Amino acid sequence: MTRTPWVAAMLLALAACAPKPETREHAQARLRSESDSAKTAIQAANVRFAAHMAAGKADSAALNYADDAVFFPTGAPAIRGRVAIRDIFQQMMEVGTWRIAVSDVKVEASGPIAVETGRYVTGLTPGPNAPAGVAASYPDSGNFLTTWRKVDGRWRIIGDMSATTRKPAAATRR
Amino acid sequence: MTRTPWVAAMLLALAACAPKPETREHAQARLRSESDSAKTAIQAANVRFAAHMAAGKADSAALNYADDAVFFPTGAPAIRGRVAIRDIFQQMMEVGTWRIAVSDVKVEASGPIAVETGRYVTGLTPGPNAPAGVAASYPDSGNFLTTWRKVDGRWRIIGDMSATTRKPAAATRR
Repeated sequence: MTRTPWVAAMLLALAACAPKPETREHAQARLRSESDSAKTAIQAANVRFAAHMAAGKADSAALNYADDAVFFPTGAPAIRGRVAIRDIFQQMMEVGTWRIAVSDVKVEASGPIAVETGRYVTGLTPGPNAPAGVAASYPDSGNFLTTWRKVDGRWRIIGDMSATTRKPAAATRR
Repeated sequence: MTRTPWVAAMLLALAACAPKPETREHAQARLRSESDSAKTAIQAANVRFAAHMAAGKADSAALNYADDAVFFPTGAPAIRGRVAIRDIFQQMMEVGTWRIAVSDVKVEASGPIAVETGRYVTGLTPGPNAPAGVAASYPDSGNFLTTWRKVDGRWRIIGDMSATTRKPAAATRR
């Protein structure tokens, strides 16, 4: 064997490991694949969350949120951090039993960040401690925009906001 | 030169190009860097958007949104697509002159997807065509959650929602 094949082999090995910029098509395929995987995980998380809310398990429901998550209610300041979000869920659960269903879920993900949109319907069966009139606000329905971060293989919510599609006029009649 | 150095060189070359999984620290540093770059670009986009809104330029303001962007108003159905969003901006501009300021902006990005949160203050100077009473809704302030996608080097909004922090009680007094 002469040296030439070895040189050729090494040059081939080096050429094979030169950094190749990702093509646009490859990047799009990768993002589609990442988005599909994220959507599967996020839809499973949504099902678990709805089950925890229905069962009155505030701690478990709050585990759907990152430590530093922010929940943005309408008509009130932002609620920052999993502990504060857990407390809100606990307060909600003291009012009654919640039904939450989401549909039309769309997810777009890149690596450990995902964005989700969808529609929600929320129902409340008031309990004995429900303030007068609170039931009149439900069922509610609208759209939500939720952002997620994956850490150690688990997706958790980092930002959460929803917009009722009920007209404000309905609110003024309450 | 014997063959041995060539063999060693080739093995070294191959070892150097074996795929190295990204360490957690390296991944975090990369995401911080990507988030910082995205924040700079998104803050510049916010400044341009506010300028276009103040100048009554609906077409230019709508270029801040992706073709398939969705804007989620409160109390109304989602507005889907840049063309429909542009039409909403045009309708807003016919009511008067808008001032939009954002603050406390936080951005988290991975590759071509970014999520942004922040606070907004919106003001309206009603024009001659403003419906009676519309001015009473402004100034408004609250939080926003906006998602972005980078295509061909430009960040554009793909999902946009805001939540006023005014209490609903104020709305019922209108």
